[in-house]
Amino acid sequence: MRSVLFSSFLLLFAGVAEAQSDSIFIRRIADEIFQKSTAYSNLFTLAKTIGPRLSGSPQTYKSESWGMDALKKAGADTVYLQKAMIPHWVRGGKDQAALISGKSRVPLAVIALGNSVSTKTGGITAPLILIHDFAELEKRKDEVKGKIVFYNHPFRADFVQVFYAYGEAVPYRAYGASRAAKYGAVGVVVRSMSESTDNFPHTGAMIYNDSFPKIPALAVGLQDADKLAAAVASQKDLKLFISTNAHALPDTVGYNVIGEWRGSETPVQFITVGGHLDSWDPAEGASDDGTGCVQSIEVLRSLKAVGYKPRNTIRVVLFTDEENGGRGSKAYSAAANANHEKHIFALESDAGGFTPRGFSFMGKEPQMVTVRAWVPLLNPYGVSAFVAGGAGADVEPLFESNGAMAAELIPDSQRYFDYHHAASDVFEKVNKRELELGAINMTALIYLVDKYGL
Amino acid sequence: MRSVLFSSFLLLFAGVAEAQSDSIFIRRIADEIFQKSTAYSNLFTLAKTIGPRLSGSPQTYKSESWGMDALKKAGADTVYLQKAMIPHWVRGGKDQAALISGKSRVPLAVIALGNSVSTKTGGITAPLILIHDFAELEKRKDEVKGKIVFYNHPFRADFVQVFYAYGEAVPYRAYGASRAAKYGAVGVVVRSMSESTDNFPHTGAMIYNDSFPKIPALAVGLQDADKLAAAVASQKDLKLFISTNAHALPDTVGYNVIGEWRGSETPVQFITVGGHLDSWDPAEGASDDGTGCVQSIEVLRSLKAVGYKPRNTIRVVLFTDEENGGRGSKAYSAAANANHEKHIFALESDAGGFTPRGFSFMGKEPQMVTVRAWVPLLNPYGVSAFVAGGAGADVEPLFESNGAMAAELIPDSQRYFDYHHAASDVFEKVNKRELELGAINMTALIYLVDKYGL
Repeated sequence: MRSVLFSSFLLLFAGVAEAQSDSIFIRRIADEIFQKSTAYSNLFTLAKTIGPRLSGSPQTYKSESWGMDALKKAGADTVYLQKAMIPHWVRGGKDQAALISGKSRVPLAVIALGNSVSTKTGGITAPLILIHDFAELEKRKDEVKGKIVFYNHPFRADFVQVFYAYGEAVPYRAYGASRAAKYGAVGVVVRSMSESTDNFPHTGAMIYNDSFPKIPALAVGLQDADKLAAAVASQKDLKLFISTNAHALPDTVGYNVIGEWRGSETPVQFITVGGHLDSWDPAEGASDDGTGCVQSIEVLRSLKAVGYKPRNTIRVVLFTDEENGGRGSKAYSAAANANHEKHIFALESDAGGFTPRGFSFMGKEPQMVTVRAWVPLLNPYGVSAFVAGGAGADVEPLFESNGAMAAELIPDSQRYFDYHHAASDVFEKVNKRELELGAINMTALIYLVDKYGL
Repeated sequence: MRSVLFSSFLLLFAGVAEAQSDSIFIRRIADEIFQKSTAYSNLFTLAKTIGPRLSGSPQTYKSESWGMDALKKAGADTVYLQKAMIPHWVRGGKDQAALISGKSRVPLAVIALGNSVSTKTGGITAPLILIHDFAELEKRKDEVKGKIVFYNHPFRADFVQVFYAYGEAVPYRAYGASRAAKYGAVGVVVRSMSESTDNFPHTGAMIYNDSFPKIPALAVGLQDADKLAAAVASQKDLKLFISTNAHALPDTVGYNVIGEWRGSETPVQFITVGGHLDSWDPAEGASDDGTGCVQSIEVLRSLKAVGYKPRNTIRVVLFTDEENGGRGSKAYSAAANANHEKHIFALESDAGGFTPRGFSFMGKEPQMVTVRAWVPLLNPYGVSAFVAGGAGADVEPLFESNGAMAAELIPDSQRYFDYHHAASDVFEKVNKRELELGAINMTALIYLVDKYGL
């Protein structure tokens, strides 16, 4: 009995000492990143000198070269490209819209949604019908024919986590066109997926249902959405003019950019950390998702800088085409399967470089128990919530097909949709310290997973 | 035994039911604020139409009128002014500095520190000595005579909470001039109290030690501080030109603006919630402390809007002169003493309108036990840390002299010192949702204190 107690005591003591050494090591990571991080300067280069990186655009390839270079500088053993066929949709010029009432013509801040077809040359003009939600569309389906449907479905301000408001509103952007086309609409204009106080229109992917005619789809800025709604409330016989040259070209070639740091004990086991390199075209793609890319690179750079030797192979992946189809994440997961790779963990950052609040995990309950024990180690760096939930589009396939635990950094969500997919998603909206604090927590988590396994 | 158990069960049940009703009530507060808050539009008016509000400036009085009006609109029973004699220091024109090396003259972004004396007309030019900290000043005291001391003491990047970095660096701003004057310096230039990535100089209060000559003191922007340091490292015989017309006028009259909402049960017991109305003069004073003012007004407006009847008298106080002497908080506390008022709680918001993380309290341990039990009620709104610590300059006197528990909202600290006391502290740096989330947590806390006491 005594020896059991004594052993337990030793184990307990060993546990406490281990936690202390982890705490000290994470403090070293934090010091390194706060004092010498290259995340912010990397983000400057990506956002300001390359800029928008829509799948298939010339910047797609410039950003791949930049990513390879940045990963080499961060100290990756091997840097390589992984091919994926990606969509190549182009905007084809400036999207336009105007509210027409009698002889007055009020221009509106609009942008075609990703994958929208073009209007006929010179645009189309049609009567306008304001629809709040799909239930109202069904009720008023007989009024829709020949009209442009304006979905004025606002973000729900009462959700504390703004991602829930996005989830609730985004079906109007994704499916609104085909659901209106079913009843004869000739175009749709969607209230932007945002609750910003400005008038930037927010684009994003939409998906046609092949059973119905493909009609052009645009998003309108929030101030102009309110202007449209006020006009509908006070006037009759309103018309809307819309014009876009958007169109799809044949799929083209894109690449995931991968930097590998070979494990010292079990190099055939993989830990992935990444963000996506592509962005929508009006934006510099700073918060979506330049921040996730540069934070992931910083994980590698900082762990090397503090002299860490990984047990497993750590891969930093800058995914291609997250925004418009997720072809990069599918290619990565498929290759992992084909090569019979063992993936133990995959982490992404794709919710902005805002101050970190927690991590969201997809995994088995014993894995959740393991990671939850680490919360006190990250707590000094602003992270307190370790929740079971989703893990982000680029790493979820590794959970589903490859058995890895998948996770995503949860930054504070209040500002993200102010800039999301809009021209306001610029470098200046990212705070250096908040970005670094996210990188510190990501690096600490990768360190703990690598050291203790899952 | 059975009846005791049964009673315990009932008590437990009553406790659970009460917590549920509090949870529902706080949800109503959140809905009200997220959907109908006037905090953001109030901030717009204060920051953009009144602007900088340095003690004694014409805007001091404009902002008092604005505050009275805003408190009436929010539904205060009584709105009144409380007199305080406040300092009246004026900048007197544009502050200037230049680095002089041979025939080259490089202008620098500078601003005189609050309470600085002027240079002689036309400015002064003197050799420059770079000093990193007070220990170095003491070591090199014989080299200081006739020179301008440049304190290049940077913020410590490794502190996660940026307020600690401020606390560590701020003595150079506050006491640097007199400590250098002791050894014959003719002026000081201080590296701005910030770790922003821009070049705005940050002002703030400095204090002369009457035992030594009063010499002019300025702050320099961070980019120019680095430029100065590089010049010192690479060149000899550098001189610095500085010029300021800053000077103090006799004290003048200012006012705390107070809005009272009379309690329905114990109106002679007071709960105070406030921010400070004054600001430094280069800034719109949006984050410091327009946000605290409009959040405090929102506490009153939202509680009235959801139909709450306070037990105690709730006072919203917009304090005068927090920045340059704290005369408003002293007047408020002194009046509370003179009138034998019983103050149970005083809350301030003066750390920016950023996403809320917690509250800091000064109080007795049993009071800490009481408030900590409320953490789960605020947790859904982003607040998890209830810490014992300071409570902010405007409410601490109520703890010290009047026995109230004092507290301060803790927003995320990463961005605060980017804008603090600089021209970059503008309305546009405040996010509507983050501001409202702070107001929600403040309102919920005031509700709980009013309902349950302390």
